Amino acid sequence: MAENIQIGILGCMGRMGQALTEEFLKTAGITIAAGSEIASHPDIGKLIPGTNVHLADTAEHVFHEADVVIDFTPPGQTATHAALARSTETALVVGTTGMTAADHAALDRAAEAVPIMQAGNYSLGVNLMMALVRDAAKRLGTDWDIEVVEMHHRHKVDAPSGTALMLGEAAAEGRGHPLDDLRTKAREGITGERKEGTIGFSAVRGGAVIGEHDVVFASDSERLTISHRAENRGLFAAGAVKAALWLAGKGAGRYSMTDVLDLK
Amino acid sequence: MAENIQIGILGCMGRMGQALTEEFLKTAGITIAAGSEIASHPDIGKLIPGTNVHLADTAEHVFHEADVVIDFTPPGQTATHAALARSTETALVVGTTGMTAADHAALDRAAEAVPIMQAGNYSLGVNLMMALVRDAAKRLGTDWDIEVVEMHHRHKVDAPSGTALMLGEAAAEGRGHPLDDLRTKAREGITGERKEGTIGFSAVRGGAVIGEHDVVFASDSERLTISHRAENRGLFAAGAVKAALWLAGKGAGRYSMTDVLDLK
Amino acid sequence: MAENIQIGILGCMGRMGQALTEEFLKTAGITIAAGSEIASHPDIGKLIPGTNVHLADTAEHVFHEADVVIDFTPPGQTATHAALARSTETALVVGTTGMTAADHAALDRAAEAVPIMQAGNYSLGVNLMMALVRDAAKRLGTDWDIEVVEMHHRHKVDAPSGTALMLGEAAAEGRGHPLDDLRTKAREGITGERKEGTIGFSAVRGGAVIGEHDVVFASDSERLTISHRAENRGLFAAGAVKAALWLAGKGAGRYSMTDVLDLK
Amino acid sequence: MAENIQIGILGCMGRMGQALTEEFLKTAGITIAAGSEIASHPDIGKLIPGTNVHLADTAEHVFHEADVVIDFTPPGQTATHAALARSTETALVVGTTGMTAADHAALDRAAEAVPIMQAGNYSLGVNLMMALVRDAAKRLGTDWDIEVVEMHHRHKVDAPSGTALMLGEAAAEGRGHPLDDLRTKAREGITGERKEGTIGFSAVRGGAVIGEHDVVFASDSERLTISHRAENRGLFAAGAVKAALWLAGKGAGRYSMTDVLDLK
Repeated sequence: MAENIQIGILGCMGRMGQALTEEFLKTAGITIAAGSEIASHPDIGKLIPGTNVHLADTAEHVFHEADVVIDFTPPGQTATHAALARSTETALVVGTTGMTAADHAALDRAAEAVPIMQAGNYSLGVNLMMALVRDAAKRLGTDWDIEVVEMHHRHKVDAPSGTALMLGEAAAEGRGHPLDDLRTKAREGITGERKEGTIGFSAVRGGAVIGEHDVVFASDSERLTISHRAENRGLFAAGAVKAALWLAGKGAGRYSMTDVLDLK
Repeated sequence: MAENIQIGILGCMGRMGQALTEEFLKTAGITIAAGSEIASHPDIGKLIPGTNVHLADTAEHVFHEADVVIDFTPPGQTATHAALARSTETALVVGTTGMTAADHAALDRAAEAVPIMQAGNYSLGVNLMMALVRDAAKRLGTDWDIEVVEMHHRHKVDAPSGTALMLGEAAAEGRGHPLDDLRTKAREGITGERKEGTIGFSAVRGGAVIGEHDVVFASDSERLTISHRAENRGLFAAGAVKAALWLAGKGAGRYSMTDVLDLK
Repeated sequence: MAENIQIGILGCMGRMGQALTEEFLKTAGITIAAGSEIASHPDIGKLIPGTNVHLADTAEHVFHEADVVIDFTPPGQTATHAALARSTETALVVGTTGMTAADHAALDRAAEAVPIMQAGNYSLGVNLMMALVRDAAKRLGTDWDIEVVEMHHRHKVDAPSGTALMLGEAAAEGRGHPLDDLRTKAREGITGERKEGTIGFSAVRGGAVIGEHDVVFASDSERLTISHRAENRGLFAAGAVKAALWLAGKGAGRYSMTDVLDLK
Repeated sequence: MAENIQIGILGCMGRMGQALTEEFLKTAGITIAAGSEIASHPDIGKLIPGTNVHLADTAEHVFHEADVVIDFTPPGQTATHAALARSTETALVVGTTGMTAADHAALDRAAEAVPIMQAGNYSLGVNLMMALVRDAAKRLGTDWDIEVVEMHHRHKVDAPSGTALMLGEAAAEGRGHPLDDLRTKAREGITGERKEGTIGFSAVRGGAVIGEHDVVFASDSERLTISHRAENRGLFAAGAVKAALWLAGKGAGRYSMTDVLDLK
């Protein structure tokens, strides 16, 4: 690993960008080398709080200054950032959710040349939960119904959550099918009986809940539930920082939190 | 109350009809005077197990023989049964779910002449829960989001459950609005942010779960949840028997479990 | 209510004292007039952050400067503070837990002359929960077992929590008995069967959990659970601030959050 | 496997014995060859319901008639039954809980000659849960606190439950220690802060709850919980029947549900 890793943060002044900055500032062995925001941001050119670098208005600048770039920006720029990672030979940690197949293809191409880490959720608990769900789904027959229930704060605009879908994918993988073949929509009205082997999703919204996910396995006579609850937002930033440190100096390739956490 | 109440059971051989029969047979002070099934039922004319009455093929017969008739049959016959209650001057306990406005109007007309008890759920716990939910909704401002989450067995064909809707109505009543003004549909895809004051519903399906309901009140800094879990089906039959005993000898009128349980 | 209420904070630099200071600084219509810490505190004489008053080393000073004094200090000084409230004619909000009967008697004496607010928990949700638990316990017979289960962070040194005991008292009150007659100890080893009418307590410890409380009512066939979860610590400070504003200008007497929240 | 396995049931008329009999009667490929009760039982010599064998008053008789004997009797006779299994060359399925070290030694000796299956809980879900708990405990550091919370019906006389202790052992094993080194007692009074690396237990009692177990892993910022709920008692009988079928024809040795369920 590099002695002192130069870190770049895209979307530096957003809620997640600020949490990442704070977390990196608490971490030994790194320097925040650059951060950017969209060109219309009022703080462009000012010092990023806690650092001695000025807020840049282009991602290019960040990729040029950093060893590892962290990208938790909203969907839309992933392909651009992947191309920059490749052209500048910079490692990239992606936490953007709602990516398209084209975005993933762009990351795959970049991963031929540089190390790329991508995960829908950077918490240790959620990633371990995915491994446990996969294992349980593999061992339990289709006479055990699988349901994913999640709750998030009132401001969340999509349902089910990206993490709920990741958990559904882990369950589907345990059963040897793609999730698209097993997934059913949220239930409303006359739905008919539940179909064997399907995976259901429910999305609860309210208050300031950071994120809670249950995966329920229900047979005729017993129920096994695996649950995760995020207690504070620092959780996700801490996992991303851990991932960035792990990724620095790795070879080209596509990595996930499963690699960081050594979950097989 | 009559010394020995003559009980009639519609839909006597269905799952709920059998549970009701068993529960009445354990109860002092009553006699099962009649029971009916649809005309095509293979047991018509045979003795109803545990009794010395023959299974009838018309509701008319049951209303003629009984002081109190219990009706947990599927939707469709409520108006007919209400008219029979009135013409035969028989008390009626209705547990049918999915009734229409016309069905309720028919019960209201019958209630001018005879005592009519109607409830969507006859468990003591659920009816107390409705009172608590109404109270909590009244005391908490609209900065507390309300969500109803229910889980039932894999054979249930509709969502949300009738009991979930009753709980939603209790919450809406606590807030001084009809549920229709506040209710939102199950969330799927891009839903946008949660609207203040709305009541959300989620339906989980799996295994053999008899019935579980949570009502969640979530503010920015705390969460209050009221939950009910049915542990066995006998629960609903026991409540209906309690209601039938209470109703015998009452004056004409429309009653609910709130009256039986004295929940104000 | 006074136009601009002068607030005094005892234990001003502790975790709760700081949370209270922050919350008051966000609140219109008040001024932080004084704050104190124990005489050995390193910040004595310095400005209290966000205010223009110096940190005092005596409670006397605080009572002399304020209209309402807030006391969330550890047990031991309640009687002293109660006497100061009386002698200085100052309203007092007490959030200290683990008080003795003598402490309560001292508050009662002070309440003959000045308004005294005392509560074991200042959250709206917990106080509403107490009202709901009392109501449910009153309506459900002793064939419904009552259990209180709580979870707190790993640093908590006592069990069960003060709030769990308050909830147990609410349940016992609903049943018309003092809690001491009904309370059973945490179960370990051969306990024998559960005794009818008792109230059990379980204390779970781990992580950084701020505070979660479940009150379970369990019959032979159904279960009703009322749960509360604190999502952030600001919750308790916000409730205390609400109580202080409500108390300013009230007549002499002993008050509780039930009065503030109008929970009958 | 034998074409038609001859099954013997000790404690045939107890609650678990009856559930086992019912479950075996529903199972193809087996015959109930014998059943016993204590000599003072009023039904000795009568036909065991659903079978054509007479209730015996000695375990010897059952071991002589059967290929596989099922023993869910109370503690005290395990060593005797183990010796009979060996002397009669009969496979033995043991579900007795609360066994001593001497009982286990007796089973070990019998296992030199015949196949012996022993488990504290025969449900598929609980056994899978143990595997998941072991795995999670191994992967999560001691900055994740582990707590086991269980709820059972009001008639249970011991705490924590045998299954809770098995789950605690699985967690301890994942951490490379015996449970005795990590286990803490139920919390009551001034307990001090939670010690890192310990495993806590809480026992809730009430109603008719068959058995619910939660294992909680709590860090400073997230919580992972694995839960199991038994929905009906048939569950345990069904697992024991599955175990008996699996055990028939196996070689000498000590087996567990982990072998039956292929949980590594």
